[in-house]
Amino acid sequence: MTDEFERIARLRTRFEGAENTHVLVGIGDDAAVLASGTGNLVLSVDTAAEGVHFERHFAPWSVIGARAFSAALSDLAAMGATPRAALSSLIVPPAFPTAAFNELNVGLAEAARDYACPIIGGNLCAGQQLSLTTTVIGAVEGTGTLRSGARAGDLIYVTGALGSAALGLTLLQRSAAERGPAFVTRWQRPRARIDAGRQLLGIASAMIDISDGALQDLGHICEESGLAAELEAERLPLDPGMRELAVELGLDPFALALLGGEDYELLFTLPAASAPPPLGTCIGRMTDQPGPPRVLAADGRVLTLDGHGYRHFGG
Amino acid sequence: MTDEFERIARLRTRFEGAENTHVLVGIGDDAAVLASGTGNLVLSVDTAAEGVHFERHFAPWSVIGARAFSAALSDLAAMGATPRAALSSLIVPPAFPTAAFNELNVGLAEAARDYACPIIGGNLCAGQQLSLTTTVIGAVEGTGTLRSGARAGDLIYVTGALGSAALGLTLLQRSAAERGPAFVTRWQRPRARIDAGRQLLGIASAMIDISDGALQDLGHICEESGLAAELEAERLPLDPGMRELAVELGLDPFALALLGGEDYELLFTLPAASAPPPLGTCIGRMTDQPGPPRVLAADGRVLTLDGHGYRHFGG
Repeated sequence: MTDEFERIARLRTRFEGAENTHVLVGIGDDAAVLASGTGNLVLSVDTAAEGVHFERHFAPWSVIGARAFSAALSDLAAMGATPRAALSSLIVPPAFPTAAFNELNVGLAEAARDYACPIIGGNLCAGQQLSLTTTVIGAVEGTGTLRSGARAGDLIYVTGALGSAALGLTLLQRSAAERGPAFVTRWQRPRARIDAGRQLLGIASAMIDISDGALQDLGHICEESGLAAELEAERLPLDPGMRELAVELGLDPFALALLGGEDYELLFTLPAASAPPPLGTCIGRMTDQPGPPRVLAADGRVLTLDGHGYRHFGG
Repeated sequence: MTDEFERIARLRTRFEGAENTHVLVGIGDDAAVLASGTGNLVLSVDTAAEGVHFERHFAPWSVIGARAFSAALSDLAAMGATPRAALSSLIVPPAFPTAAFNELNVGLAEAARDYACPIIGGNLCAGQQLSLTTTVIGAVEGTGTLRSGARAGDLIYVTGALGSAALGLTLLQRSAAERGPAFVTRWQRPRARIDAGRQLLGIASAMIDISDGALQDLGHICEESGLAAELEAERLPLDPGMRELAVELGLDPFALALLGGEDYELLFTLPAASAPPPLGTCIGRMTDQPGPPRVLAADGRVLTLDGHGYRHFGG
């Protein structure tokens, strides 16, 4: 094991090359300094903990690092913000191999360059359970796209496809990755929808990223907007072969699409009278009927799904 | 145990009342929004983990929460920055009592109000080991006071007294708090030296906060400034009774003052020709002799201290 300060010195080198013009002081002082620039600042923090969000055999360490970074940035995407910088705070077991530690940080560094979002500071701490806590800072005009802006009658859209990451996670949990490598990749390598979020800024009336399951995340828009929602199951965008593989594995594809988390797609609403959005699939509409979001089958029946999206501490 | 979203809803209420005019969107959306305002932004993150930074019998939970917040803000003090906002990311064992969880957050909320530094977001995650990761955002003119600005011949100053927190921690570890309650308080209730840091902005040539031990933290200024340093042991500011109690307990008061961490005082340098600073005690000077900081006894001998400041992962 190498010493804390040696490690930090190496990280300082490792995280170089993603700097942008806003970074005035990066790693190496008591704090980092960022030019405030124009627009307002958007701030969010997300944790990925071993045994909770991932198992170490689910992906190479560099992929686990990059995945944690993307998951954190997904919250900036959901605001319509542009990433400016990140802070990486790691809790690392004393016996964690140095090679794995290095790989993890290679993944973080690659993701930082990929998103042009430099890691300008952080913290390193010994502890029982490996965790990556990533703080992200972005810039946005106004307040970005909030959860609270939906109106009754607004149409509900989603980017990309739903449930593929949850299917991939199930394959990993069952040690059956070879049955659907494309779905495993969807879980391992999510992409924060930064560009989509920026395109939808000023167009979407409300927006959220799908981290805990589409239905639960839509529930947050309902709650903050004081509304309910109705989804049509047959409209849910699924990746090719997703439905078939799910059924083969004895899983409900609609449950995966609606309750499975970690797609990191954007779910957003749009006034029905607006022009169609530049991207996304319409999956339902906001209503003013009281109660949680409902899902309608093709024949108009209300679907009953077993369970809800991911929640810490049960519930 | 209560559900994650119920907990977050309660925290949203609990953290109210510290808002400042810069907070445009607080807890409850994908991310918080802060007006960028004038000046540059200063960003830092710090973790307090149970079993590493504290034991649960060392202080009431509210004190542990407030302490973690102060420790994080101390890095802003060392830059000469003014706190603007914070994000609180907690990892909480599933069996952690709800009453303790509430108390911990009462402490965080009180500290946030106390420093006028609202908690505008965060993350809540179940995990094996309790940890509090606090991201702090401040504002500063220019780049603040860096570690790298010291020059050979500059005098070295420190605010407050050294080693009291380390003595208090030793009392707690030995279950002997009653022998020095004032020192225990110094460990339990550190105060981030925000006002001192602001007063010294533009005056100090380099500055750092003392979290890992004065000698080790001075070593960072030496390294970043490309210099060495010489301290005079007899000049070290000690709290009344500190030396006597340390000796009674079989401890070296100089080792406590120089190697003991968590005083969260500011250590800074000043050109020798400058007017005396508005606060602080002169304890030595920067030199251009190669090597680590040296400590001289009253008779001019170089003191040998057993050990070094706190380091994760040994070293």
